Amino acid sequence: MRVDAKRTIAELRELRELTGDGYGAQRVAWTDTWLEARKWFTAKLTGLPVEDHYDAAGNRWITVRGASEKALILGSHLDSVPNGGWLDGCLGVMTALETLRGFAAVGTPPPVTIRLVDWADEEGARFGRSLLGSSAFAGTESIAADRVRTDKDGIRLDAALARCGVDIDRFPEAQRERTNAAAYLELHIEQGPVLESLGLPLGVVLGTKGVERHAITFHGQEAHSGSTPMKVRRDALAAAAKLALEIRAIAGKHPDAVCTMGSVKTFPGIVTAVVGRCETMLDQRDLDAGVLAQMYREAQEASVRFAGEERCTVEWSRIWGIEPVPFHPELIALCDEAVREVSGTSHRLPSGPLHDAAEVARCGIPTVMMFVQSLKGISHNKIEDTREDHLELAVRAYALLAEKTAAWIAAPSG
Amino acid sequence: MRVDAKRTIAELRELRELTGDGYGAQRVAWTDTWLEARKWFTAKLTGLPVEDHYDAAGNRWITVRGASEKALILGSHLDSVPNGGWLDGCLGVMTALETLRGFAAVGTPPPVTIRLVDWADEEGARFGRSLLGSSAFAGTESIAADRVRTDKDGIRLDAALARCGVDIDRFPEAQRERTNAAAYLELHIEQGPVLESLGLPLGVVLGTKGVERHAITFHGQEAHSGSTPMKVRRDALAAAAKLALEIRAIAGKHPDAVCTMGSVKTFPGIVTAVVGRCETMLDQRDLDAGVLAQMYREAQEASVRFAGEERCTVEWSRIWGIEPVPFHPELIALCDEAVREVSGTSHRLPSGPLHDAAEVARCGIPTVMMFVQSLKGISHNKIEDTREDHLELAVRAYALLAEKTAAWIAAPSG
Repeated sequence: MRVDAKRTIAELRELRELTGDGYGAQRVAWTDTWLEARKWFTAKLTGLPVEDHYDAAGNRWITVRGASEKALILGSHLDSVPNGGWLDGCLGVMTALETLRGFAAVGTPPPVTIRLVDWADEEGARFGRSLLGSSAFAGTESIAADRVRTDKDGIRLDAALARCGVDIDRFPEAQRERTNAAAYLELHIEQGPVLESLGLPLGVVLGTKGVERHAITFHGQEAHSGSTPMKVRRDALAAAAKLALEIRAIAGKHPDAVCTMGSVKTFPGIVTAVVGRCETMLDQRDLDAGVLAQMYREAQEASVRFAGEERCTVEWSRIWGIEPVPFHPELIALCDEAVREVSGTSHRLPSGPLHDAAEVARCGIPTVMMFVQSLKGISHNKIEDTREDHLELAVRAYALLAEKTAAWIAAPSG
Repeated sequence: MRVDAKRTIAELRELRELTGDGYGAQRVAWTDTWLEARKWFTAKLTGLPVEDHYDAAGNRWITVRGASEKALILGSHLDSVPNGGWLDGCLGVMTALETLRGFAAVGTPPPVTIRLVDWADEEGARFGRSLLGSSAFAGTESIAADRVRTDKDGIRLDAALARCGVDIDRFPEAQRERTNAAAYLELHIEQGPVLESLGLPLGVVLGTKGVERHAITFHGQEAHSGSTPMKVRRDALAAAAKLALEIRAIAGKHPDAVCTMGSVKTFPGIVTAVVGRCETMLDQRDLDAGVLAQMYREAQEASVRFAGEERCTVEWSRIWGIEPVPFHPELIALCDEAVREVSGTSHRLPSGPLHDAAEVARCGIPTVMMFVQSLKGISHNKIEDTREDHLELAVRAYALLAEKTAAWIAAPSG
């Protein structure tokens, strides 16, 4: 099977010209620019022997019938954040398209049915709800909560979807697309610095990390900066500062774990007062549910200890969380083979950011992702970039993985 | 000399009824409520053998002629912050009045001239410029900078003063009041928890602490919370957290020093990003200029060290500062005697907050302050309070100190 990686890169540049501006990509889901990107994509299908339809959640499905009804799904998303990069999401879709072309060009039907999916609204940039389309596919949609979300102009989510022909009440019908789904593959830029630091173009993703996200507030006693002796202070900032440092030790016990205090707010927040209340936010992630639970427990225990030391109190409030989603061991092995055969060396790493692949894997479909190196680990920004030779390797390795996976599905044990 | 402390307390309650509301005292300088307080004070002078005038900065001077032209000044301020307490400032003025009455009631002229001063705008609550009237007296006014200050409604400081009959350009004329000034005494609530923690009603103030106030910003690298390994992070919050803890060790080397990080701001300040920039504010105070300079240097060095450890950079920007103002050793000794004679035990402590006494002392007039215990150390709040028996001791000790100081001035060595 042959693929033309240079064509994929040229198409990505074409899409950038069409749907980006001086600030970056503007393909925010449910906007005119996103619809324009999808229309542009339609033109790319001309002449291909495919069936093309949208499901009830606005996900787009392009199908090449194979010898078996069992389906290999190749997917990603065309939507972007505002002022986004030129690769996040659409690299995966355009590489999937090139792979689909490769299967179609063989002349004989592929061993299994090959389906490309362009997920609707992976980013959640406009309404704050990520993985919208893939959650409908997976049956984890949250219609009641999402319907009433509004964008910055006050437009409701359900109204924005209706304008694009999508009825949120019909979301559950998208689960029909799971019929015969046998495997799911997704290529994405890493959005982190690991592969670059190792000097490797490609990596195999072990799964998406689980997340524990909490608001943690320390309560001390506001007091005058000038007249309150150090020894009698109940400084809420001091307790928070200890936790900000301790989370590094907590994460440091595990090779891929991360803990981040991304926000600290001080009250009254004036230089003439000891901080009486300190509001922080903590994000903890790991691929292993046990590690994640341990880190959460250790952070809680540390916060209580530090509050005690500073004669403060502490309260925790859960903001959000998701369990780790490990990918399929056999597909990880196949991805490892494909990466190794194309680029010589492979590396396995977890994904910190979430992806549609996590929704697919959660509903029981064997799944794996491939990462391609991100320069400086930067994404969601117009300077997001990947070396061209790395993009070419990625397209070739992904197509090879698709071939291997199709054979795996078709095999008696698959 | 006899004073009636219960009368002083009754008058303070009268003033609270007249110029406070459900939220606290509202005698903000240059407002109608403040003018009403001053008018009320006029009525209290009826029948006293005094001369009464305002200087060019709006400070009010009430004079009882003595055997000598050398003057003992008794002062404080009637103005308050919005929603202030019932004692801050006016306790000192009303106690000075009671002391003046005591001198006047003796029948013979006091050994030296006794002058009461009600400073204009100690708090700076409306225009953000503290010690306005006393700085004009001391010759440290800053007319050009202050003239154009505006309140929250956009009214300029010079216009607000003109409405009260004060011409800011004539501020330097207030320095005339320094003629013959031989000593200055001020009673104030502590506004801190030290005397309460020692179980003492009264204390002798050693001086007002010098202040070094800086904005300190750490610059790291914003990065994705999920995809950025702990080891490659450049977390600006971590560097700031280390400094927030280290300032306690820096202050802890000196008995009365304080260091406060009162404000921390994180950027971008979202839970999904490592903090790329952390803006903090640091306030350092001590009565000893050498200690203050050392603490400032140590905090700077520590910040550079922590920035280095976290691969961040740090920049310092001076917000404000003032040198320490030690009070007069002989007056400190007299105050100690008076406190001891009235309440049995004395304690010497520096003042963290600034007071008009600092301006008076800076221009070379021998000065001392007396503190009376503040319940819970709380001020600038309607719950500010002091036990009634402590207020009575304060009035008596202050009058005794005035007698001792008048004798000290009148003595050949004074």
